[in-house]
Amino acid sequence: MKKVIYEEFGNPAKVLKVIEEPSQDLQEGQVRVEVLRSPVNPSDLIQIAGDYGIKPPLPAVAGNEGLGRIVEGEGKGQLVLLPAGQGTWVTEVVCNPRHLVPMPDGDLDQLSMLLVNPATAHLLLTDFVDLKEGDWVIQSAANSAVGGYLVQLAKERGINVVNVVRREGAIAGLKKLGADIVLIDGPDLAKEVKAATGAKMKLAIDAVAGETFGRLGETLERGGTLVNYGAMSLQPCQMEAGAMIFRDIRVRGFWLMNWFENASKEDRMATYATLTKSVLGGTLYAPVDKHFGLDEINEAARYSWAGGRDGKVIIAPNGT
Amino acid sequence: MKKVIYEEFGNPAKVLKVIEEPSQDLQEGQVRVEVLRSPVNPSDLIQIAGDYGIKPPLPAVAGNEGLGRIVEGEGKGQLVLLPAGQGTWVTEVVCNPRHLVPMPDGDLDQLSMLLVNPATAHLLLTDFVDLKEGDWVIQSAANSAVGGYLVQLAKERGINVVNVVRREGAIAGLKKLGADIVLIDGPDLAKEVKAATGAKMKLAIDAVAGETFGRLGETLERGGTLVNYGAMSLQPCQMEAGAMIFRDIRVRGFWLMNWFENASKEDRMATYATLTKSVLGGTLYAPVDKHFGLDEINEAARYSWAGGRDGKVIIAPNGT
Repeated sequence: MKKVIYEEFGNPAKVLKVIEEPSQDLQEGQVRVEVLRSPVNPSDLIQIAGDYGIKPPLPAVAGNEGLGRIVEGEGKGQLVLLPAGQGTWVTEVVCNPRHLVPMPDGDLDQLSMLLVNPATAHLLLTDFVDLKEGDWVIQSAANSAVGGYLVQLAKERGINVVNVVRREGAIAGLKKLGADIVLIDGPDLAKEVKAATGAKMKLAIDAVAGETFGRLGETLERGGTLVNYGAMSLQPCQMEAGAMIFRDIRVRGFWLMNWFENASKEDRMATYATLTKSVLGGTLYAPVDKHFGLDEINEAARYSWAGGRDGKVIIAPNGT
Repeated sequence: MKKVIYEEFGNPAKVLKVIEEPSQDLQEGQVRVEVLRSPVNPSDLIQIAGDYGIKPPLPAVAGNEGLGRIVEGEGKGQLVLLPAGQGTWVTEVVCNPRHLVPMPDGDLDQLSMLLVNPATAHLLLTDFVDLKEGDWVIQSAANSAVGGYLVQLAKERGINVVNVVRREGAIAGLKKLGADIVLIDGPDLAKEVKAATGAKMKLAIDAVAGETFGRLGETLERGGTLVNYGAMSLQPCQMEAGAMIFRDIRVRGFWLMNWFENASKEDRMATYATLTKSVLGGTLYAPVDKHFGLDEINEAARYSWAGGRDGKVIIAPNGT
């Protein structure tokens, strides 16, 4: 079997390496899963860089979510989601099947992305502000996977979304996903939002940080909430004190791991039941830009981080 | 009578001017108040600069709180607090006495500062986090009037405070007010806080903004709250996205005007009853650095903004 490991934290395009090991024999009750798809999420790369909320002991196996098929042991032939955060950029996994979530056959790429980004988009829309039909939300990095899911989930509920991207080329893809308003980020963003909507935002969702963070804040109504879940600009979040003080803006952070830790089991199951149904039904969807094999992992990481893509980068450890 | 006005927003040391006008005759039921003391608060100067949450129509009379004595009309001889936000850097005010709050005789300087800063310090400690005896709070700009009141109010309740200042010379004054821990702000602030306390902060209170804002955030416990109520550095608030995301830091702004608008009358009266008692009893106290007359208003503004003082700058429109 092959797996992608890193022995030190750093640039994923450099520190990741593929090693080959003999396959493990199955112990009683274990199954062997052939890994079919594993997405490259920004959080995976940030973790490898050593800047994530969890620092795994080194050497570590990279990747945090994925889809596979049981090829040996009970349930042979069953499609399954791998347990989150276990090192998924591997050709195979040997484990107890109780850690696996059975999936009906469907679009392998879409199913492989179920665990992290759709849930993030769903929780960003539900966990901070009580949004009603007709309310306005603004999001940066709108062309990310989370951004695309959020467009679809908001549309389903009749919530209006202003989508902010950093380049012209990202607009068409978002419109295809159902986005109505897409604006290019810049110093006059708040004015442009006002001109495009005539409305004040109730919730702002930021994954860019830097000055974009503060600009999203400017578009909020008094008492509005700004949630940050990423820092694609690699800059600190910046906002004028006056915005917070005089307009009572509330700032929060979102991390899916916190939700996993704090939500009840019922809550988690209900959330994923709904999301799985939407993904299988094709109403919740993330475009895929390109597949890479395990051996191309450094290029996959570089390509994924560089931006300018039209969708997700997905690892296919056993070929597409 | 004389009053300090500004006809354009800008540097208070330049745009403020003193004009002389005939005294108004009293209408039925009105009283004339000779203004004795009016503090120079940072918010007054920010308002004159045009950067405040409220922009008064121009020309405007400067100053937002003050203490006077009724010299004509019903209640002659009574010491009174002027109504907030009405232009208090004046030699006299003519108004209906129902807008005045009667005060027993006492320290004129201390009473003149009752309306804004003690209430701000009190509400910062009570309105955001449910603090218990032994809990830890950190504050920047600790040598400001609000900072000093906060030290005294926290001590009364057994709450521990880490005080952060920007210069050595501010330490002694804070210790005199009862501060136990005073640290100089710098890149290693979080480490120094840990070394000095061994504790994580439950609440951080910032009036400096810039990088100080993010440094205070670093000292918070997971799920801790950071409240900003000023930007003495004139920089935007800055914080690493990771702090908010991975440690679930919650950021809020505080503006006394929002509280005035939203709190019930009972709540406001109860708050000021307690604060008045403490100020009259001498347990709630702000050091005074210097008095200025109305004619020295530009120098008073410059001196007040420059920092490096040992207490409040107070206008005495009719001499000390």
